[in-house]
Amino acid sequence: MFKMIAMFKKPEDTEKFDEYYFGTHIPLTEKIPGLQRVEVTKFAGDAPYYMMCEMYYENKAAFKEASKTEESKASGKDVMKLAGDSVTFMFGETTNG
Amino acid sequence: MFKMIAMFKKPEDTEKFDEYYFGTHIPLTEKIPGLQRVEVTKFAGDAPYYMMCEMYYENKAAFKEASKTEESKASGKDVMKLAGDSVTFMFGETTNG
Repeated sequence: MFKMIAMFKKPEDTEKFDEYYFGTHIPLTEKIPGLQRVEVTKFAGDAPYYMMCEMYYENKAAFKEASKTEESKASGKDVMKLAGDSVTFMFGETTNG
Repeated sequence: MFKMIAMFKKPEDTEKFDEYYFGTHIPLTEKIPGLQRVEVTKFAGDAPYYMMCEMYYENKAAFKEASKTEESKASGKDVMKLAGDSVTFMFGETTNG
């Protein structure tokens, strides 16, 4: 599968961040057509990141199609508003299906 | 679920790395008792990492138990031999089951 991954640095106010992220941003993201699965991981201890969100698509073509939609643009705009200065995006393929 | 994540910087010889990683290291890792799933992602473009391996356990207690086994120690020793100077480990919990 093709994955888009957002890695978040620790926000100043984690409670406020989480409330917006899970209450507003994730529901927006889940509307993206073609998005098959969203997995959020909160890191423990002294990890270099606070949280990671993995968004799964069937393949790269499906991701590219999804990116053209209003829902994808709305989610992208929203995450930049929330964490534009503290998020790193990575893209990749799973090697085992 | 509880996840242990290994993030790999790009190795000098990616072909040699991949051959050992998928041919020897992953089979060793898959023997760890309690390990429920392994997902490897290869990053595209100019990502800060080459590859990521996510190892899923039912919960933190299951991971701790697994870590005591010979299979886990063998896998840990093997990855350090392969990539001791270029791997970062992170640990975390998924927020959605």
